[in-house]
Amino acid sequence: MKIAVIGASGTIGKAVVESLKNEHTIVTLGTSQSDIQLDITDRESVREAFAKMGQVDAIVSAVGAVSFKPFGEYTEDDWNLSLQHKLMGQIRIAEEGTQYLSNGGSITLTSGITSDFPIHYGTSATTVGGAIEFFAKSAALEAPNGIRINVVSPTVLAESAAVYGQYFPGFLSIPAAQVATYYQRSIFGLENGHIFKCFAGNS
Amino acid sequence: MKIAVIGASGTIGKAVVESLKNEHTIVTLGTSQSDIQLDITDRESVREAFAKMGQVDAIVSAVGAVSFKPFGEYTEDDWNLSLQHKLMGQIRIAEEGTQYLSNGGSITLTSGITSDFPIHYGTSATTVGGAIEFFAKSAALEAPNGIRINVVSPTVLAESAAVYGQYFPGFLSIPAAQVATYYQRSIFGLENGHIFKCFAGNS
Repeated sequence: MKIAVIGASGTIGKAVVESLKNEHTIVTLGTSQSDIQLDITDRESVREAFAKMGQVDAIVSAVGAVSFKPFGEYTEDDWNLSLQHKLMGQIRIAEEGTQYLSNGGSITLTSGITSDFPIHYGTSATTVGGAIEFFAKSAALEAPNGIRINVVSPTVLAESAAVYGQYFPGFLSIPAAQVATYYQRSIFGLENGHIFKCFAGNS
Repeated sequence: MKIAVIGASGTIGKAVVESLKNEHTIVTLGTSQSDIQLDITDRESVREAFAKMGQVDAIVSAVGAVSFKPFGEYTEDDWNLSLQHKLMGQIRIAEEGTQYLSNGGSITLTSGITSDFPIHYGTSATTVGGAIEFFAKSAALEAPNGIRINVVSPTVLAESAAVYGQYFPGFLSIPAAQVATYYQRSIFGLENGHIFKCFAGNS
């Protein structure tokens, strides 16, 4: 298979590439370290990047910045960051990427555990992560050519626990390599419109 | 109680006002027909309108335009309409309105049945309606002063069935007066972070 990974320089993206690269052809899209550069906040940039990429069998999105603030303290810019990156960035990837997928191909987007379990300062993450899950639920039913659209919802990563763990008190973390197995299930499995919840035992 | 209703000129808003006005003081916010004008796409306008309104015991939002298109045909402007009206419009109402609510007051927002049951052309409605439900789930836990935040999710209205019914094949419609009862449950009940699903029997 030829598989596109957007956000391959992130902790999850790296683990996804690592888990797939021996048996599949990987093309990475994103920052300057990627095969193809793209800015997910700009639809024209996404279009140009996918035109360079050409046809693939699966697209994985492991991107999406969000802002964190106490409820009531978000500015318009804070919300705009979350909306234009994690939400619209991934919607643009799905909408534009569909045209470059072979029949029966798949798109796998990324939400996050905060949609199921709100955390302090997490209103924006909960909102846009949830929005991605609802987007996928609808788009999966309406997408053409047997294309499947799923979402992986990871808990806090073991690799990030030292930095972000304080915001997830009592949450069990999961290594990125284990999270990557859920992307494999989405790419190679049957599910469509499914939310793969990568939560550890205490969720 | 003093209750603010935003979107009081709409079918649901009218029914909510009708159901409350005999026993409560209603202040309406929105278009030029309202007591106080506000543009929900502009945070400064929301702030100014709430400053004119002053303290209330409950805020009801029955607003939110969304765009409808087949999957893959939404433009940036189409998405922007849904994000800035139904999603951010209601988030602005909740964030700014919190400061004007008495202790134990409530905010009731509006999503829609398409988040539970996607329809043709409805990706954007499903996405932003779902986002509002997730926003409320998190904000309800973090809001100060015992303020409760709930969401009402109506199915297609009997009053709108002639126009929109074709997009909801087989969905049973509900009169706006019946939908209004769920707003009463949110305002006067105990629930917090709850999604009141106003669906008829075949959902």
